[in-house]
Parts: sequence; C-alpha cells; structure tokens
Amino acid sequence: MHHHTDTIIALATPQGTGAIAVLRISGSESIRITNLFFRGKDLEKQPSHTVHFGTIRNSADRNSEIIDEVLVTLFVAPKSFTGENVVEISTHGSPYIVQKIFQLFIDYGVRPAKAGEFTLRAFLNGRMDLSQAEAVADLIAADSEASLQTALKQMRGGFSKEIQALRQELINFASLIELELDFGEEDVEFANREQLKALLANLTKVLQRLLDSFRLGNVLKKGVTTVIAGRPNAGKSTLLNALLNEERAIVSPIAGTTRDTIEETLLINGIAFRLIDTAGIREATDTIEAIGVKRTLEKVKEAALLVYVYDVAETTLAEAQQDVLTLLTPTMDLVVVANKIDLRPDSQGFVLPQTMNNPELRLTANNPADIENLKQTLWQTVAYDYQADQTLVTNARHYEALQGALQSIKAVQQGISQSLTSDLLALDIRTALHYLGEITGEITNDDLLANIFSKFCIGK
Amino acid sequence: MHHHTDTIIALATPQGTGAIAVLRISGSESIRITNLFFRGKDLEKQPSHTVHFGTIRNSADRNSEIIDEVLVTLFVAPKSFTGENVVEISTHGSPYIVQKIFQLFIDYGVRPAKAGEFTLRAFLNGRMDLSQAEAVADLIAADSEASLQTALKQMRGGFSKEIQALRQELINFASLIELELDFGEEDVEFANREQLKALLANLTKVLQRLLDSFRLGNVLKKGVTTVIAGRPNAGKSTLLNALLNEERAIVSPIAGTTRDTIEETLLINGIAFRLIDTAGIREATDTIEAIGVKRTLEKVKEAALLVYVYDVAETTLAEAQQDVLTLLTPTMDLVVVANKIDLRPDSQGFVLPQTMNNPELRLTANNPADIENLKQTLWQTVAYDYQADQTLVTNARHYEALQGALQSIKAVQQGISQSLTSDLLALDIRTALHYLGEITGEITNDDLLANIFSKFCIGK
Repeated sequence: MHHHTDTIIALATPQGTGAIAVLRISGSESIRITNLFFRGKDLEKQPSHTVHFGTIRNSADRNSEIIDEVLVTLFVAPKSFTGENVVEISTHGSPYIVQKIFQLFIDYGVRPAKAGEFTLRAFLNGRMDLSQAEAVADLIAADSEASLQTALKQMRGGFSKEIQALRQELINFASLIELELDFGEEDVEFANREQLKALLANLTKVLQRLLDSFRLGNVLKKGVTTVIAGRPNAGKSTLLNALLNEERAIVSPIAGTTRDTIEETLLINGIAFRLIDTAGIREATDTIEAIGVKRTLEKVKEAALLVYVYDVAETTLAEAQQDVLTLLTPTMDLVVVANKIDLRPDSQGFVLPQTMNNPELRLTANNPADIENLKQTLWQTVAYDYQADQTLVTNARHYEALQGALQSIKAVQQGISQSLTSDLLALDIRTALHYLGEITGEITNDDLLANIFSKFCIGK
Repeated sequence: MHHHTDTIIALATPQGTGAIAVLRISGSESIRITNLFFRGKDLEKQPSHTVHFGTIRNSADRNSEIIDEVLVTLFVAPKSFTGENVVEISTHGSPYIVQKIFQLFIDYGVRPAKAGEFTLRAFLNGRMDLSQAEAVADLIAADSEASLQTALKQMRGGFSKEIQALRQELINFASLIELELDFGEEDVEFANREQLKALLANLTKVLQRLLDSFRLGNVLKKGVTTVIAGRPNAGKSTLLNALLNEERAIVSPIAGTTRDTIEETLLINGIAFRLIDTAGIREATDTIEAIGVKRTLEKVKEAALLVYVYDVAETTLAEAQQDVLTLLTPTMDLVVVANKIDLRPDSQGFVLPQTMNNPELRLTANNPADIENLKQTLWQTVAYDYQADQTLVTNARHYEALQGALQSIKAVQQGISQSLTSDLLALDIRTALHYLGEITGEITNDDLLANIFSKFCIGK
C-alpha cells in the first residue's frame, strides 16, 4: 500500500462557467501552501470549519498580481472528508481563473488528484469503510428517490454494520477452531459443533437474503428495464403515452405505426422504470417494420419486467397466453394488460399455466384511474418485498464477494457433516472471512482500490 | 425601486454532475429556513463565516427522510456578498439531489433567484457600486490575463474611484453655480469662472482619456480580431501554424489550399488575439475557392488588426502596397509581414504612403525567432499605450455615459465662452452629473438595472 501523504488538488464542482467554482486541496501541507498565496487572515492560525475572505495572488510574493477574490474554507485534520487538512477555495466561476489557481498550486508541487482520490484517502484514513466509499459514487449518480436512499443508507454505514457483525461472529468461531489446532492430536473441541452449526445456518440465511436483495437493490439503483410488448394495434403506444402523461409515441389506428423502439423513464414511488415501447409482434408487412419486430424481440430479452398488452376484442385468451409463453424468460417479472376492456367488459380473466401467478390488469388505456392502478401494480411487482430500512446489495462487487462467502460457509457446513478435521474447517472459514472483509475493505489490495476509485469523478 | 426582502435560492455552481454542488440562499430568513431542514447544530446560534456538517431532511419534520449529507456555510448580514444573511449548502454533486433540495426550499416559499439577482442585491445593499457589480460578470467571463486583470481592477473599485472623484468636483461647482441662482438678479458669481474653466478643461481631458481607453479596454476584455490576409501561397497558413505552434491549418505549396476561414485564439502577454486565417485573395479558379475569397473579404472588414502577408519573391512592393490599400480601413491596425525573406534577403522595405506608419516585419515563417518577434510586434501594436495601473473603460454602457458627460461638459464650456446665465450652465452641469452617476449607479432606474443584471448567469 502506498502512503498518501502528498498534497493533492482538484476542481470539485462541474466544469464550465458558473457563479462560483470550488477547488479542493487535501494533505498535511494544504493549509500552509494555500496561506502562501492568500492575502487576508493568517490561515494557519484559524480554527477548523471557518471561512475567510481574501485574495489569491499569482505567487508567494506579497505584492504579486491578484488572480481572484476568494472565500477559503478550512477543515483541520482529522475533522475533514479525507481526514487530512483540507482547504476549499471558492472562486468566481471562470474556467480561466480556476485554471490559473490550479496551475499556481501545481507549480508549487501540489499534485493533481486522480479520480476518486479524495474518497480513497477518506477510506485509507479510516473515515469510512470501502462499501461506504463506494456509495459516494452511487450517491453522485443517483437519479431517483430509491437510488438516492439506497446509496445514502450504504454511505451512512447500514450495510457495513450488517457485514461486520456477521464477520465478527465468524471470527470468534474461527479463533476457537484454530485453538483446537494448537492442541494438535488431542482431539478437543473448543468450538461447540452444535453452536457452530446454528451460527452457520444463520449465516447462510443472512447471506442468502443479502444475495436475494441484489435484484431489488439493482432495480432501485439502476431502474427497471420495462418492455411493453404485444400484437400490433393492441394499444401499446397509447399505454406508454398514458403512463408518461404526454404524447411521446405517435399513435394511430393503423397497425405497425411504431417502428423504432422508444425509451423513456417513469418514476413510480421513487423507482425508475425505463419504459421501452416496441413495434407490434406480427408478420411484418414491410422491411422497416420487419426490422422493428426484430428489435422488439431483442429488447424483450433485456427486460426485467415484461408488460404484455393485448386487445380483448381482437385477441383470444389462448393467443395471448401463447404470446406470453413465447416472450417470457424465467428471470422476468410479468404484468399482463387486457386492454380496451370497455369494448368487451365481459371478457374472461387471464390465467397462465402452472406456477405463473402474475397480476393481470383489465383496463382501458385512456382511463386515468386504470393507469394509476397499473402504475401501482408495476411498482408492487418489483418492490413487493421492499422495506424502507432493509439492507440491500446494489453493487456487483459486493454480490460476488457475498457469493464467495456463502460458498465457503456451505463448504464448512459440509465439512462438519463429514466430520472433517479442524484445520480444513478453519481454512474454509478463513476464506469466508476474506470475502466478507473485501466488502468493507478490511481485506484489500492496490489493484482492487485502483479499480474501484478509477470509476469516480475527479475532485471526489 | 422594489424592495428586495424576500429569500431567494439558486444553484451557484455549473449544471451537471461533479464531486460537489453549491446552492446559495440569500435573504433575512435564509438561515432560519435552512435550519428547519437541517439536522446538526442549531444554525441560528452559530457565528458568521462558519461551516457545519449535517443532513438536509425532506421536510421540517425531524424524522423525515434524508436528502443528503451536506456542509452548510453561514454568512450573517451584513458580512456577506449580498449584505443579507446568506447560506451556502454544499451537497454531493448529483443533479437529482440539487433538484430535491432546491424544490424543498421552493415549496417552503423561497423564490428561485433571477439572473444576477445576488449581485443586484449586493448593489442595492451598498456592498458595491454599479460598475463594480458589472465587473463581476466580466470576471466570470474572463478568458485571458488582460481581461481578468481589467475586470478585477474594476470590481475592486479603481474605475469607480476615478469617476466618483470627477463627479465630486463637478458637484462642488454645481452647488456654487446654483447658489448664484438663489441670488437671482443680483449678478453675483460665487463660482470663479476662471477656476471653473480650469476644472472643465481638466474634466474634458480626463473624460477624453477614459473614452480613448475604451478601444484598448475592449481589446483587453474581448481580444483582438486579427485577420491574416494576403495573396495565395504567401504563407498565411504556415504563419498561423507557427504562431499557434501546432499544425492547425493544412499547408501545401498549392495555391488555394485554405478555403474555410480558420479561427483560433492566441494569448500574447495576456492579450487574446482571435487569429483568423483566410483564403488567399485572387481570381478564384473554382467555385468553392471563390466562396472562400468572398468570405475573406467579409472577414477582413471585421478585423481590428490586419496582418498582411506577402511573399517577397513573388509579389512586388507596388502590388503589396496596392493590396494593403484595398484591404485597410481607417479603424484597423496593420502589421505587414514580408515573408520568405530568406529567399530574397536583399528585398526592400515596405513604406505605405502618407500617414500610414505601421511596422513591417521581414521574416521567414518557419524561423522561431522571427515568429517570437512578430508576436511582440502584434502585442505592441494594440497595447502600445497599456499601463498596468491605468483605468480602462471596457463597458459599452460606461462608454456611452462618458460620451454624454463629455458632451455636456463641452456645452458648459461653450456656455461660459458665450457668457450664458448661471441657470443654463447649471442645467448642463446637472446633465453631466447624471451621466457620471449612471456609471456608478448613484443615478439609476429599474429598467437599467434589469437590463444589466439579466445578462448575468443565474446564481451570481
């Protein structure tokens, strides 16, 4: 692990012209160096969390040219984001001024920060664990209430606490098991096998629950890919427009009006549904429509949620069921919309064979109450088991580590049932601990960190 | 004049995703309202210029959902940019989070700030005069050392001081003249006419100097439109590339290579030269080139500085002089470049008829020392009378007001020489005072202010 003791600088606000821009400087020397160029109060004598008005000069020479009038905010270690001395310089929002001040510090030997380096330092200095640091990037990318709340919860440590508690229990058992090793041939059991079995069963349950939460977590973070499919003229585009409450797709009574797939985001109770309207599925009558139908079938494959729409006056139940069976894959959620129900109020319900037990909505696409009902159904379909204070896994790296941990725990369980020796059990427990430690960063390495933080923006 | 007492909010940093974003709130209620949504220290009990970590909640309810972890900076009136209570909320740089917090304040009755409204309030609350406020916008738009320094000097009040000093002298005389009016028919002269004449002569001189500085001021602020023109194959594109030190324009020995005009900015000693390379001027051999030549002639008309390039081996002095006389207008500066001098080191110098006394450079476009020499010549041509601490007029509105003032002063001078009565003199002096007062904002009105501040960005 490198030691990160040098002083770094980056623009923390977005590029471009604005009222103000903020440059962030972190490192033990950050206040002393800023003080060289600042005319105003002596920054080295000011308390943490104070703001000072003054000018930044073009060099350490007291009489050199002014670059800008600025506000300097001081955060004295360890009471800062990175845990180091941090200075924020709020300048007038001219890219030219920002560049000049940036260059001034670079010329003095301050280093331009790499992507995510401030957050990396926060992690290395123990201000947050790795999963919390990762949540900072998720928070900045948040674009729905659900993604925001999931990232906030993770950043504030909810997820870490659960993982750390599991890990601590395992560590306790690992110590007992390893104590047995010290006694070699004596065949003692310090770790009560029945208690260990109970703990392992509990661990399996919790890990499985966290793994299961990944699908929902991902949905909350990234939104639900929702494909609206059905036969031509079933009213798919009318449904899309009604859901979005705008005339997004061209609607006509002519079958095959929609050719390109149309994608729009709809927020329902804070979850982003990426709605995709598609060309109707049928034998296409022209080449462009044929391409449209091909795209539809490709889009359907990517769907997390299939909204199958059929016209009760035109399509029989048998035909509709056949369509759904053709389109649906085992990982998809399904909502069936029996449309134009006002034309056939007596039409029968939709029952899918066997295990399929998905909601069907009998509605008319231009009835606002029906559309509201559909929205709630869509939400419930993906978020039926969502509880506001639930720990959710949203990060593919965490998911993989949890899978590794679960596998190792299962190996331990199997080992116990086969009466394996303590040293073999200890090995699998250590592997599980390793995986759990990777999530919070108790176990880490430079490559892993570089990989995580390179995805951050510069200045964070 | 409206009273600006309500509380306003705007995003102060550029739009988009970044590490942080800053929302700025100004008004007497800004700290109290922020405190409603903030969980952390009681903001109403904290001193000015302090920073506080905490969370912003989705409503005034203590237990409502967190929107973000933030840093709140307090500026207590009158020690703030606007002179009112100001709060800056530094959030994670997600547009979604910014929008949520913005909406939270709007829902509570805080008003979205109009363009430039923070600076307008700074003016209305006496934190700066009008010409200083205008300089804030120039500062944000600054893109060269000269434009930055000119805007900074104006923002820091250098220009205002000179105008205010002039105005004060005039006010003193105006009082004396108006005192004469009170004595009506008695024909007294409190204002010594000789002293008044001396003051007016001095005023005329200063106003004329300020007016003359507008051309240079504008150049420093906006840069110099510099057109490189000449016959085909004279080496114009080679010269452009050499000045920019990069292969910006396609260069070939074939006459007519450049068709589109190419525009690039070159900074020389802090002044921005907007270099425009053009198609060579000649009878075009094809349609596209003909369009190019037409564009060249149009571009030349816009030039503040003409760089005429000719090939000493191909073009006679008489031809070159004829070209220049065709292209040059009275308001243009001229630099003549006798190119490819290495091929004809004995070629003669370039003398323009009569008053024209412009530098000619004999050079080879691929000789770095020659190019450096050309750069210095370009700089001297526009900035020959530039002194670092000189007051410069850069703003068209100020220029017009100064013109108005000068005109009135000249009317006063004429009035004295024609022995006009005090009341007529007083009228013209009042007009001059009005114009000068408009610059610093001592005389103003809502339309003028709206016009000035609508050009600002929102958040400033």
